[in-house]
Amino acid sequence: MSSESFTHKKKDVSLDAARHVIDSARRAAEAIGVAMNIAVVDDGNNLVAFERMDGAWLGSIDIAQGKAYTARAFDMSTRDLAPLCQPGQSLFGIHATNDGRLVVFPGGIPLEKNGEVVGAIGVSGGAVEQDQVVAEAGAEAF
Amino acid sequence: MSSESFTHKKKDVSLDAARHVIDSARRAAEAIGVAMNIAVVDDGNNLVAFERMDGAWLGSIDIAQGKAYTARAFDMSTRDLAPLCQPGQSLFGIHATNDGRLVVFPGGIPLEKNGEVVGAIGVSGGAVEQDQVVAEAGAEAF
Amino acid sequence: MSSESFTHKKKDVSLDAARHVIDSARRAAEAIGVAMNIAVVDDGNNLVAFERMDGAWLGSIDIAQGKAYTARAFDMSTRDLAPLCQPGQSLFGIHATNDGRLVVFPGGIPLEKNGEVVGAIGVSGGAVEQDQVVAEAGAEAF
Amino acid sequence: MSSESFTHKKKDVSLDAARHVIDSARRAAEAIGVAMNIAVVDDGNNLVAFERMDGAWLGSIDIAQGKAYTARAFDMSTRDLAPLCQPGQSLFGIHATNDGRLVVFPGGIPLEKNGEVVGAIGVSGGAVEQDQVVAEAGAEAF
Repeated sequence: MSSESFTHKKKDVSLDAARHVIDSARRAAEAIGVAMNIAVVDDGNNLVAFERMDGAWLGSIDIAQGKAYTARAFDMSTRDLAPLCQPGQSLFGIHATNDGRLVVFPGGIPLEKNGEVVGAIGVSGGAVEQDQVVAEAGAEAF
Repeated sequence: MSSESFTHKKKDVSLDAARHVIDSARRAAEAIGVAMNIAVVDDGNNLVAFERMDGAWLGSIDIAQGKAYTARAFDMSTRDLAPLCQPGQSLFGIHATNDGRLVVFPGGIPLEKNGEVVGAIGVSGGAVEQDQVVAEAGAEAF
Repeated sequence: MSSESFTHKKKDVSLDAARHVIDSARRAAEAIGVAMNIAVVDDGNNLVAFERMDGAWLGSIDIAQGKAYTARAFDMSTRDLAPLCQPGQSLFGIHATNDGRLVVFPGGIPLEKNGEVVGAIGVSGGAVEQDQVVAEAGAEAF
Repeated sequence: MSSESFTHKKKDVSLDAARHVIDSARRAAEAIGVAMNIAVVDDGNNLVAFERMDGAWLGSIDIAQGKAYTARAFDMSTRDLAPLCQPGQSLFGIHATNDGRLVVFPGGIPLEKNGEVVGAIGVSGGAVEQDQVVAEAGAEAF
């Protein structure tokens, strides 16, 4: 077995990149006047950076991180995942797995480079449509 | 009293058997081009072996193990269990028991010897129909 | 900010590499006649592969994974970490962090490529000296 | 009854202040050449902001947050708390309370305004003396 077969190169999210993503998301949150919690995870689904805007919901500290975790866990937005998780649908019950870290409603979006998922952003603090808009602003800045 | 009366022979899943099951499942996953997480538990519902194919969903590490656990926990496939767990059905809410280890959608299948359940395989990484196909390939190899 | 500052390349542990590491560790375990649990995690500290040898301690399923997790969590062997975690030492109490996933005794070793930690192996099933020997055999095969 | 009687003014840590604290700590970390995880909690002991420097220990994501939580939980530095938590001392066993969120070694420091604790910083990523130095740099910037 050659040395190459032991490892493969991967891209990842740097702290600078995470800060840029969060800054962009925060500006989008300020534009709609909603205080948000914003989290960014890296390729290995580990937290890189987190910010809670003044006055943002305390319960969303966990949810923002959970949305980022979920989007990287399945390499899809939590908005796309949500309908599959409803009662009667194919993934109903998935919200109880992964030690309670999954969040199955909008606001989590993968961060991609050249079509490869290398991390994710999660946003929580408003209506899910607002969370989604802010997360999109962050993801687009990546 | 002879030594035999203190013990009972039990059929179980050896590591060799688990590796064979996982190899078979992995080939089925490669055949459909989906990277899977694959887990095998034994008669005591304890993990024997686990493999994550390169690039497979990180969130499915837990779910593959959960599907195997669930299939052995109730000696039935998670596909058969799923409809009973929906809202309004007889087992609704069961996904919140067992410390969050249960998974109530397809991809977990008991491993049987002579009609007796002695373990289970769990597969996660694609659409549930894909997970099911791969789990079946593993179970049939047992 | 240039595109390069957003991401950085990383090496990682492939499934083939993890299987090779586990095979090497298992042969070392067979050589000393102790049934072991063996786990390999990747760069992001997520499980790649796990095997329990026939008859190995059930309680070590969790411990082997915890040792691998710990070695990657701090990029050092759990043998080097152990003395720092004793009563009166600088890291006493650390075993209660990370949601109970840390194991602070020998048997966990980082996997390195060109001096960079890209994963870890964890072994549990015998005396800690035996676990250490088997983990070393696995790490050296990487 | 006036509106004022229903509320009391409280001093707290704004996101701007937390970012300033983290920036100052990060510069101190860069000065000693150690990649750190840095967390800031507010008056209610809820996370305000977190950053992981590139390459910092993954296991310290949880510990940095735990140190900040602990410093605010008892309004004292975790360095002052540590000796009280050793075997035979008055608080031995405390590390197992608070759902595993406490960290009883140096690197967590309260943030004070006019002698009143209004939050805390937690730092993890190096030797505890290094963590302490970086946390002090952050706390002094507040």
